[in-house]
Amino acid sequence: MRYEEAGVHIEAKAEALRRAKAQLEATYTPEVLRGLGAFGGLFDAQALKGMRHPVLVATTDGVGTKTLLALEAGDVSGLGFDLVNHSVNDLLAQGAKPLFFLDYLAASRLDEEVLAALLASLAEACRAQGIPLLGGETAEMPGVYREGAWDLAGTLVGVVERDRILGPERVRAGDLLWGLPSSGPHTNGYSLIRKVVAGQDLEAWVPELGETLKEALLRPHRSYLPEFLRLEAARVEVHAIAHITGGGIPENLPRALPEGLGAEVWKGSWPIPSIFTYLQRLGGIPEEEMYRVFNMGLGLILVLPEEEAKEVQALVGGFPVGRVVLGEGVRFL
Amino acid sequence: MRYEEAGVHIEAKAEALRRAKAQLEATYTPEVLRGLGAFGGLFDAQALKGMRHPVLVATTDGVGTKTLLALEAGDVSGLGFDLVNHSVNDLLAQGAKPLFFLDYLAASRLDEEVLAALLASLAEACRAQGIPLLGGETAEMPGVYREGAWDLAGTLVGVVERDRILGPERVRAGDLLWGLPSSGPHTNGYSLIRKVVAGQDLEAWVPELGETLKEALLRPHRSYLPEFLRLEAARVEVHAIAHITGGGIPENLPRALPEGLGAEVWKGSWPIPSIFTYLQRLGGIPEEEMYRVFNMGLGLILVLPEEEAKEVQALVGGFPVGRVVLGEGVRFL
Repeated sequence: MRYEEAGVHIEAKAEALRRAKAQLEATYTPEVLRGLGAFGGLFDAQALKGMRHPVLVATTDGVGTKTLLALEAGDVSGLGFDLVNHSVNDLLAQGAKPLFFLDYLAASRLDEEVLAALLASLAEACRAQGIPLLGGETAEMPGVYREGAWDLAGTLVGVVERDRILGPERVRAGDLLWGLPSSGPHTNGYSLIRKVVAGQDLEAWVPELGETLKEALLRPHRSYLPEFLRLEAARVEVHAIAHITGGGIPENLPRALPEGLGAEVWKGSWPIPSIFTYLQRLGGIPEEEMYRVFNMGLGLILVLPEEEAKEVQALVGGFPVGRVVLGEGVRFL
Repeated sequence: MRYEEAGVHIEAKAEALRRAKAQLEATYTPEVLRGLGAFGGLFDAQALKGMRHPVLVATTDGVGTKTLLALEAGDVSGLGFDLVNHSVNDLLAQGAKPLFFLDYLAASRLDEEVLAALLASLAEACRAQGIPLLGGETAEMPGVYREGAWDLAGTLVGVVERDRILGPERVRAGDLLWGLPSSGPHTNGYSLIRKVVAGQDLEAWVPELGETLKEALLRPHRSYLPEFLRLEAARVEVHAIAHITGGGIPENLPRALPEGLGAEVWKGSWPIPSIFTYLQRLGGIPEEEMYRVFNMGLGLILVLPEEEAKEVQALVGGFPVGRVVLGEGVRFL
């Protein structure tokens, strides 16, 4: 018996990695001392010595079952953006900026074409954010994954000055909640979405959406790094940031609030993208369930002093969507 | 339709995380400013400012299909050690020491008991190595994973002084290869192992092994951090380190060698654990395939000047297993 007979194809993986090598290396910044092929990636951290008090920030995330929809629709080119941008937003929620990224790709069988496309998407997404892809792991696991299925996860490491960390400690009662629009469901709720759209033609133009389901559902998770940098450059005071992912506003907004403070969120104060109302109708999903699963049109919620609202609006757009109040949890008004 | 009907159980995950909270937090060091529950973990990096020239090192790895064997055998308590220790060794190969770890757990359905056991194992493994578990992601993905299957991956970030980075640049022709014993197959070759032992009683005592298959096959990946620290404290000169993982000695040893240099490896110079010869016989696996898939008893190979051999032997044990020679690749003698 040989390893090939056990369903593991060492050569197919090596070949896809060879094909993507130039794209992956194009993400490198001068800080990358050793990348692909090493036992671990090396990132020059000398710049941290110039900081007052550096704090490393790290987050691990996956794309979830959006991969299944992308594979079904025959287009995985957005998944790298989903993964990288999701992670970037998790760092922003701490006030941190990215240093480097590592990916984890796994499947029952490493199809060379899919793997090459995924690596290309990851590399492109990293380049778009200016983040080197420092390393990663690609694993073939017959018996763990369903035939044809892939998982896509990754880890982003960044840095922030200790006295610039955002979070609950800074938040005050009366702070304004400022929502930034999402590009769609981002990477959350896709197990439900797949049930709801099962049997639908993903390629058909849908009048209510003004586009196809494929376009609406595969649009990548948006990164708010440009907006964050613009606010930072203008020295806008932000107290905390909630990244609205799995669990929606009710689960994620409280993570940005201290004990003793809650939030009131004003329904109707921002436009709900038509993909959500479409899914709600098609699936007969109760409204409160919609808010518990999806971002409902807000990808990021900034918590900030009311005085900053005017400048924020001018700099990055978005909507006033609620306020921090005494109490606990999130109340929709 | 509700999210539960799509196969996603938000509450079961929350409950398992609540149960494991104290264990996970017990891994924290004073550097952890924000851990579990945050959008990203925060790690105080002020100590890096005291270094001459800090270089961050990061590695992402998975446990592979060893998870399937552990689930079949009803004992996942070693998998956290597999994951963490594998990652630690990848850092050592660069001369780096760990700072913090993040995990990624995914399954078709998050069984609360299995998840709690995996988190406990991860926490215990991190504590044993003195590494805080700074964050992670736990994902339920119906449709991606096979029923009952889990995947377990993670990312370790560490640091090394720039002038202490180990690697090919330091290696010279004539350097000695010094092998440190593995504890078994570690985390590699398990797709093949599962094929070979299919139908065997994992709980039966096997005379050739002196233990059960379950014991021999689930023994965790060994960490060589204690040995590394002992060599460092004694200022032993090490040029490079190869972590022998997937692809065995032929794939991993060359990663520690520069262009123009290869290695001769002396077969028989170290004891091959009986689990390997047992698998070879049972599966009718060609010898050269065995060496291409398994570590064959060597978990780490140090590349060092011959003069250091005596001290290395006294400090950490192990065996002289070969030599660096002019040429390319690995030649077994």
